[in-house]
Amino acid sequence: MDFAYSPKVQELQARLRAFMQEHVIPADKAWSESAAKHIHPTALIDGLKARAKAEGLWNMFLPGLKSDEPGMALSNLEFAPLAEIMGRLPWAAEVFNCSAPDTGNMEILHRFAAPEQRRRWLVPLLEGRIRSGVSITEPDEASSDPTNLKTTIARDGDHYVINGRKWFTTNAIHPKFAFTIVFGVSNQDPMAPRHARHSFVIVPKDTPGFRVVRDVAIMQHYSVEGHCELEFKEVRVPVANLLGDEGAGFAIMQARLGPGRIHHCMRSIGQCEVALELMCERALSRSTFGAKLSDNANIRDWIAEARIEIDQARLLNLKAAWVMDTKGTKAAQTEISMIKVVAARLQTKVTDRAMQVFGARGLTSDTPLAYLWTWGRALRFIDGPDEVHLRGIARKELKAAEARRQA
Amino acid sequence: MDFAYSPKVQELQARLRAFMQEHVIPADKAWSESAAKHIHPTALIDGLKARAKAEGLWNMFLPGLKSDEPGMALSNLEFAPLAEIMGRLPWAAEVFNCSAPDTGNMEILHRFAAPEQRRRWLVPLLEGRIRSGVSITEPDEASSDPTNLKTTIARDGDHYVINGRKWFTTNAIHPKFAFTIVFGVSNQDPMAPRHARHSFVIVPKDTPGFRVVRDVAIMQHYSVEGHCELEFKEVRVPVANLLGDEGAGFAIMQARLGPGRIHHCMRSIGQCEVALELMCERALSRSTFGAKLSDNANIRDWIAEARIEIDQARLLNLKAAWVMDTKGTKAAQTEISMIKVVAARLQTKVTDRAMQVFGARGLTSDTPLAYLWTWGRALRFIDGPDEVHLRGIARKELKAAEARRQA
Amino acid sequence: MDFAYSPKVQELQARLRAFMQEHVIPADKAWSESAAKHIHPTALIDGLKARAKAEGLWNMFLPGLKSDEPGMALSNLEFAPLAEIMGRLPWAAEVFNCSAPDTGNMEILHRFAAPEQRRRWLVPLLEGRIRSGVSITEPDEASSDPTNLKTTIARDGDHYVINGRKWFTTNAIHPKFAFTIVFGVSNQDPMAPRHARHSFVIVPKDTPGFRVVRDVAIMQHYSVEGHCELEFKEVRVPVANLLGDEGAGFAIMQARLGPGRIHHCMRSIGQCEVALELMCERALSRSTFGAKLSDNANIRDWIAEARIEIDQARLLNLKAAWVMDTKGTKAAQTEISMIKVVAARLQTKVTDRAMQVFGARGLTSDTPLAYLWTWGRALRFIDGPDEVHLRGIARKELKAAEARRQA
Amino acid sequence: MDFAYSPKVQELQARLRAFMQEHVIPADKAWSESAAKHIHPTALIDGLKARAKAEGLWNMFLPGLKSDEPGMALSNLEFAPLAEIMGRLPWAAEVFNCSAPDTGNMEILHRFAAPEQRRRWLVPLLEGRIRSGVSITEPDEASSDPTNLKTTIARDGDHYVINGRKWFTTNAIHPKFAFTIVFGVSNQDPMAPRHARHSFVIVPKDTPGFRVVRDVAIMQHYSVEGHCELEFKEVRVPVANLLGDEGAGFAIMQARLGPGRIHHCMRSIGQCEVALELMCERALSRSTFGAKLSDNANIRDWIAEARIEIDQARLLNLKAAWVMDTKGTKAAQTEISMIKVVAARLQTKVTDRAMQVFGARGLTSDTPLAYLWTWGRALRFIDGPDEVHLRGIARKELKAAEARRQA
Repeated sequence: MDFAYSPKVQELQARLRAFMQEHVIPADKAWSESAAKHIHPTALIDGLKARAKAEGLWNMFLPGLKSDEPGMALSNLEFAPLAEIMGRLPWAAEVFNCSAPDTGNMEILHRFAAPEQRRRWLVPLLEGRIRSGVSITEPDEASSDPTNLKTTIARDGDHYVINGRKWFTTNAIHPKFAFTIVFGVSNQDPMAPRHARHSFVIVPKDTPGFRVVRDVAIMQHYSVEGHCELEFKEVRVPVANLLGDEGAGFAIMQARLGPGRIHHCMRSIGQCEVALELMCERALSRSTFGAKLSDNANIRDWIAEARIEIDQARLLNLKAAWVMDTKGTKAAQTEISMIKVVAARLQTKVTDRAMQVFGARGLTSDTPLAYLWTWGRALRFIDGPDEVHLRGIARKELKAAEARRQA
Repeated sequence: MDFAYSPKVQELQARLRAFMQEHVIPADKAWSESAAKHIHPTALIDGLKARAKAEGLWNMFLPGLKSDEPGMALSNLEFAPLAEIMGRLPWAAEVFNCSAPDTGNMEILHRFAAPEQRRRWLVPLLEGRIRSGVSITEPDEASSDPTNLKTTIARDGDHYVINGRKWFTTNAIHPKFAFTIVFGVSNQDPMAPRHARHSFVIVPKDTPGFRVVRDVAIMQHYSVEGHCELEFKEVRVPVANLLGDEGAGFAIMQARLGPGRIHHCMRSIGQCEVALELMCERALSRSTFGAKLSDNANIRDWIAEARIEIDQARLLNLKAAWVMDTKGTKAAQTEISMIKVVAARLQTKVTDRAMQVFGARGLTSDTPLAYLWTWGRALRFIDGPDEVHLRGIARKELKAAEARRQA
Repeated sequence: MDFAYSPKVQELQARLRAFMQEHVIPADKAWSESAAKHIHPTALIDGLKARAKAEGLWNMFLPGLKSDEPGMALSNLEFAPLAEIMGRLPWAAEVFNCSAPDTGNMEILHRFAAPEQRRRWLVPLLEGRIRSGVSITEPDEASSDPTNLKTTIARDGDHYVINGRKWFTTNAIHPKFAFTIVFGVSNQDPMAPRHARHSFVIVPKDTPGFRVVRDVAIMQHYSVEGHCELEFKEVRVPVANLLGDEGAGFAIMQARLGPGRIHHCMRSIGQCEVALELMCERALSRSTFGAKLSDNANIRDWIAEARIEIDQARLLNLKAAWVMDTKGTKAAQTEISMIKVVAARLQTKVTDRAMQVFGARGLTSDTPLAYLWTWGRALRFIDGPDEVHLRGIARKELKAAEARRQA
Repeated sequence: MDFAYSPKVQELQARLRAFMQEHVIPADKAWSESAAKHIHPTALIDGLKARAKAEGLWNMFLPGLKSDEPGMALSNLEFAPLAEIMGRLPWAAEVFNCSAPDTGNMEILHRFAAPEQRRRWLVPLLEGRIRSGVSITEPDEASSDPTNLKTTIARDGDHYVINGRKWFTTNAIHPKFAFTIVFGVSNQDPMAPRHARHSFVIVPKDTPGFRVVRDVAIMQHYSVEGHCELEFKEVRVPVANLLGDEGAGFAIMQARLGPGRIHHCMRSIGQCEVALELMCERALSRSTFGAKLSDNANIRDWIAEARIEIDQARLLNLKAAWVMDTKGTKAAQTEISMIKVVAARLQTKVTDRAMQVFGARGLTSDTPLAYLWTWGRALRFIDGPDEVHLRGIARKELKAAEARRQA
């Protein structure tokens, strides 16, 4: 047991922090002005991406990367503290080609794609030339139980025909959006096992019948890449666009969600650190009723509680990454669920306290807190609502208890 | 002791509910579409206002109204359950000329305005022809302690010259915005008592040197009336624009904040009821893992907790209104602080649970929940942050304890 | 709507407070010393009871009392603020013949007892000459769902034969214990409706086969009256000991639990006031790190939160009493459940904060806090666990939502 | 970074679990029966101690142990998981000579004792032949700020004369109690630095003027070893009984409290695991309203939350131990404070939920829950109240923020 980051990680942390400080943070003003106009600042991002790639800070998230693929082949435990640093600025991950849902798509393409699929979709993603979406959740179904999902992927000769409606497909209005990976029912046999009826297919953006219905505001906020509602109306793609086997949808989804979840969580932890720093600095610089805010014991308690909760969350996240690395994603399922629940809640909680210290300015967009608070709320749904994860954790605990009872 | 609404109130509740159902709720779609474009739907509102005024559902908030002034002269206890009904739709209060900060301005003008001020500013407000702002809080000061406020109101012959910067002045971009009432230091004597140095003056919108710097997003949301940052640069107004006496700023502010606070709170309670209704309806209509959401004991607990908390908050609010009516605003200060803290927190809490039942749709603007949640957060600052109110409540409690110790 | 206590209530409050101050509180030391030795201080209590009875502060809890029965025939709304005063000292209610479970037993005997039962059991209870128990919950069944209860009450000629095991029968080791009222299955027909199979019978203390198995510590504390585990082994009582009709057990239990629950709650509120007073006084009298504890903003927040929560709980409790008085116990079921949940939790919460202000002394028996905290925890089960009440509240809310959906 | 227990630790865990299973747990009934009569079961404990010592499971807590001293010289990180196992039974630590306050006393004697002190006090402690107390906190002072402490240790020729009153001295009624180490003011110079005026002296039990005033119940519970109030009235001890230097009291106290705190915390975590296991087993074995308790989503949520919180706490505790081992106790101060706050709260929280699943039986002494809950509450004071630790954590955080502001 050892709680120190390895020398390799410490060196990467230093490099990444320096890159952020020198190149990314100074660009935040320009990025934000563009985003306020709902325009993706493509040139700015492209410039930063080129530089990050040149410096080798690229595709840090993918443990299985081969030597001829661009990137660093870090383990999850190595990536986690870097994701935390990127998370400090909400848009920074894109600079390092580490942003969702491309990361998850690269993971499953890397693992399940056929050679032609790799060439056409994975390579440009790994090179950061295109962006992609993933379309699972549906507006009219309770998607936290994915067996409810209704979009159909029907075989018709050499094609699949897709019909349905999806939403929260990130990137669908990104200027470099190239395709989305769609989850749907490919086996209409009502007798088939419930978890073996769904598949994933790749749908390129210009396929007839595919339409972005609308971008969906999340907590009253429109992002530059979009979280879009999509319509699939008799959309035909070649059978070669099937990812993995027919009926393997649930297995692929599980493989996908593990790492993605802990990336979100580490970024959350980075954002919590930002909120805590802002809270402390504000508390030191403001006075009411004859005393600095930082002299108030309630505010001091909030600061201490935030430190405690962040440190606990980080440890849990690193442990989850370590279990993934040493025992595989499936073995880490409980740890992943735990940190998923913890981190999403924590972001809202820490930010809430920070806002309170800021007073009314905490409500405005003059600080990142309003964004972090609302986005933290959204994270309680992204990758599954808290309750679904709690359910899984409890089930495992009860199963162990049942085994003890039998023994 | 009697917990029943009076027959008069019950009749007014029925009339107001019917008006909302028949006229206001059907207009919500049009209102929202306009608001989404950041345009105040003036014609729509004017039509509804005319109808409400004609039906006598007008200026319900002002207990002291005289017989020749338009309105109903309801007590606070009578108004509270009506404010709750109006609160169910965020924009409805304007229809009945009961929206902040005009209500507070009418209250203080009614109580402190000189005859010419009444004619020029109060009468058109009471008639709903104009809208107004109030400018207290400042961007660069910790305004929860108003002795910190720095805007100057300097006597110069027959004029006051105002210099400073204010923000969160609601209505400043409303098409009918006519004036704002500005709080500032009028007595520069550093020896003067800290609570006798500030005054209020009326600044008409077209006064030279007065400028709307920007509208300020609150939790990433721009309202149609604005919560604006204002600049006052050598703004000159006649001395006749002083409200009440010089140095009476704190006294006027206290008179103003009492009723306004409980109006907000009653509207919050109405909004909590909306969130709870939506939560129940969603829970009944969705299924996951083979069961209706409403069959899950955790969701049932959330529903029950919400009912308990809302009912407690309503009782506390009605009690505060009753103390105001029977013993005056000053005597009700603790009760007002208590419900202020409770209601603002509750809105976020109940809405948070409702969102969770809605799943990802709870994040979107397809339901009012995202707005209610973020607005609930803002309410924890509007009319003073929680901590300032808790401080006052504790001080009173400790004072009583100290008296017991001495006895 | 009126939040003032009636003049009658105010006068009773003053009388009761004076009696407590003059006679009861001075006896606390003697009572506690006896209790520490696990001996009921009978002479002390008898003296105080005689005095309270002489002053007419007697049987305040029973609204339906007839003119020839000793007591005041107060409404629930009138009794509630008196129960709060009695609650300030855990053992005080007995002085006024207002302590559980005698109160509940007097209620159901008053309503359901046959003339001979009245003469033999009710009259001495009303006169305070004996004490009684009620035996519902069972050690081996999940009693929060009383259809689970298994004790049998089998008709055998002119007798009922009782077999089973009960626990938490309060008073069973009280020196004046005379009988307990036992809940059990009297109809063994497996086809009978589940809520029409149980009855109540009166079992005098000296009936053969009846045995106190043990007194049960509650949170490591043994009370002087006992919360006992009882064995009923072929216990035979005449059929005349049946209370009400056979199969009416659930109906009688419902009638019993309403008022009893709100009595507990009002006493809890009195205990919360004691804890808050102690907390304030301690905070004023101690210093650490150069400041009085009461100068710490976190402790001030705790004080304010306690005041807010207590005031809300009191209002809810009074409202529940008012609904009981004006619409009946059945109509008040939701309000009773709400205050039941709120008050039990609150006692632990307020006391917990008070203990924290006391430091280590808060752990000892030098203050009443340790007792209040642990007893508050017990109250979360007494009269039904929180979850059963929340379940009922939610069911009602969902039923209303379902009705709206149908409409 | 590595989250696996070392092979050495895993082997020790297995041995300790086996010993607990085979020898300690079977003795719990006898121990508890004796404890219920307030009698320390000395023979039973002595037998188990001999066996544990023989098997080498002895003095596991002391990293600095020399080869000629009995024990294992484990690091804190190695000891922590063993403390968790011992913690599962409240009295088990004594069996392995690992129970407070002897552990802390051995630590400071090991580090600061003069040769004769070692021979006379440390050796028999290490061998488990005697038990000892530590007397710091005082009944009449706010001891969370130890500069408040008033007991005097006055030099008088070759002696120190001690006057004062202490409480919460554990072990003072243990049959093997031999001495207590007393903290007091040895330098009466009012100009001396506040943190250099206190010293520790060893007071043997039979010293004239030393008196056990009373054993103090903690949350209504008397332990078999006592948490006693002590009087020191002109108690004279030779100067050779001074521990370390005069005025070094604060430094010694700091050295002492670090490891002791994390021992308590690890035992707490063991107790939380017991509570969670009991909760799961109860939930699986009981039914209400036609469903197993474990089928209720609220109870499942409690189980999952408990698992999350326990796992986070364990990681934080192990991290604190690791920092102590690698950087020293002083460097670990923040981590120690964090886990101190977390673990003490958690014990009450997890146990509270478990009790709720148990229903009324959770209140009784039929399960360990009532004890664990009340003892958990006490832990929020033992080794310093939460607020003192939060204060220290916040101070460090604010100091770092201040440094950033200056930079």
